[in-house]
Amino acid sequence: MSVATHQLLLALDYGGTKHTAALLVPGEQAWLAHGRVYAPPGADGAWDQAAMLRLARELLAQHPGRLAAIGVSFGGPVDAGRGVVRLSHHVPGWEETPLRDRLQAELVAPVAVDNDANVAALGEWRFGAGQACDSVFYVTVSTGVGGGWVLGGRIWSGADGMAGEIGHNVVRPGGVPCVCGKAGCVEAEACGWGIAAKARRRLDEGQKTKDEGERLLALSGGRADGVTAQMVAQAAAEGDALAQELLYGAAEALGMGIGAALNLMNPQRVVLGGGITKSGERWWQIVRETARAHALPQTRAEIVPAALGDDAPLWGAAALAQSLV
Amino acid sequence: MSVATHQLLLALDYGGTKHTAALLVPGEQAWLAHGRVYAPPGADGAWDQAAMLRLARELLAQHPGRLAAIGVSFGGPVDAGRGVVRLSHHVPGWEETPLRDRLQAELVAPVAVDNDANVAALGEWRFGAGQACDSVFYVTVSTGVGGGWVLGGRIWSGADGMAGEIGHNVVRPGGVPCVCGKAGCVEAEACGWGIAAKARRRLDEGQKTKDEGERLLALSGGRADGVTAQMVAQAAAEGDALAQELLYGAAEALGMGIGAALNLMNPQRVVLGGGITKSGERWWQIVRETARAHALPQTRAEIVPAALGDDAPLWGAAALAQSLV
Repeated sequence: MSVATHQLLLALDYGGTKHTAALLVPGEQAWLAHGRVYAPPGADGAWDQAAMLRLARELLAQHPGRLAAIGVSFGGPVDAGRGVVRLSHHVPGWEETPLRDRLQAELVAPVAVDNDANVAALGEWRFGAGQACDSVFYVTVSTGVGGGWVLGGRIWSGADGMAGEIGHNVVRPGGVPCVCGKAGCVEAEACGWGIAAKARRRLDEGQKTKDEGERLLALSGGRADGVTAQMVAQAAAEGDALAQELLYGAAEALGMGIGAALNLMNPQRVVLGGGITKSGERWWQIVRETARAHALPQTRAEIVPAALGDDAPLWGAAALAQSLV
Repeated sequence: MSVATHQLLLALDYGGTKHTAALLVPGEQAWLAHGRVYAPPGADGAWDQAAMLRLARELLAQHPGRLAAIGVSFGGPVDAGRGVVRLSHHVPGWEETPLRDRLQAELVAPVAVDNDANVAALGEWRFGAGQACDSVFYVTVSTGVGGGWVLGGRIWSGADGMAGEIGHNVVRPGGVPCVCGKAGCVEAEACGWGIAAKARRRLDEGQKTKDEGERLLALSGGRADGVTAQMVAQAAAEGDALAQELLYGAAEALGMGIGAALNLMNPQRVVLGGGITKSGERWWQIVRETARAHALPQTRAEIVPAALGDDAPLWGAAALAQSLV
């Protein structure tokens, strides 16, 4: 029966609170099947693994074929060489889990596992905004900042699986205190929590004029501690001078970090994803101009928006699976 | 005659004022033959090429064998993919020279060409302080700062051949003005000219106490404008507080730049070469401590002295040649 000889790729994305599985025919750019499960409060690593396995088996049962390979994105540090999850940033019970070997044993197919930022970079390179590039630096700027490299068509994860951590490079010495213990890191200066923290501090210090902070404070119902990065972006678009200063200062900090990455690695393209990248054209202009000003003129990387949004890790998992067949 | 069937590798190092050629048997770690020629004042690209070709032919005439491959290090920007020299920083007449194709035609063997920092990185990886590592970041700190990457056993030169340019990453915004137009770059803060320029400025402002600058000024015969980075290192070793502040501040700037590179690429080892790295144990300690403090704790790269000194590009050229056979 010829249908049974169809090759299938399985892509798995273990997120923080939701887990997604999808099936793909090698060479195709659309899902054959797709399913998602949300983790209930109190779920742990064992729950996550059982739920994902059940989801994968349901998809495979509905679509006859030969499972040729499995690619996995995991939301937390991974030892990609050994296919071992170090831990989850979201739930307990994932510590030192040999995820590759377990999936290989359960589903009887070769498996590749990497962390979500690296896998998302591969996804954008293979299916998204980095197509046809030899090298891509992918940076996601949302609540935090993550990054991943694709060099010569392969993920570069570094000696300890840590490559891509632009978020903790200092661009403003003595600047916003960062979760890592330093101050003025790209993450502290440019990501969601950093922008919101800076906005709250400035509002607490008291607004100076009608145009400075008034609009921003109105958006948060008058409570400085309710301000979010999204409100800052909206107030900036509406002409609030304080919000503009904060948002464009954040864009500048990111641009400085990217400029330094261009000098160090000279990638062909930089792909930016995450919620903060929806902050408007002026934000993009400042990121690009600052990166350009900080990079040597001979580095010519384009800086472009991500194309796959939240699906980048799942598409990247498909690309990982594809690389095994 | 069996001797005529010996395979030979030819390594060529086009430096600024001296050009070196050497012969090697594949797999060996010692030169079979070695020659050097010094460029006279007024020499140009045509002179360099003719002199190097003559030198190579002399070596080959003395050592019968089959020339299997040629590796080339060039002191200036190179388009490695096409084997074309963009220009020399030292003499005119090298602009857009198809060096790979010329050598291939003249000496009838496959040729690989890259710039000196990249080739030196490969040399340290294959024959020096980076042996047995999967990834090495090589940085040379002398008059200027240069760098090169070996990732997965191959040079990573980037989309425009510019990768490794840590020298122009800003670590002290608003710091020492740099030749690149920015201020506070690693090169301006940490290399020979940067240290000397800062020392001269401080001495011109007037020394404050007996221990601050007096020793340094004595070493330069009392003339602030005669101070060199080497004098700063010597005065620092002899207890001059101003010299120590300058030298250790320079080490800190380099450490900040390296720490950021560890976060971005997570190499297994960082190899530091160049004259400034001879500034004593305290200099090394500050570079290492600062890099560690700026890198995430999960990145574990060692930071070690280069092993090959000025011969790193020549050994790297041998490794390039080896990669072709």
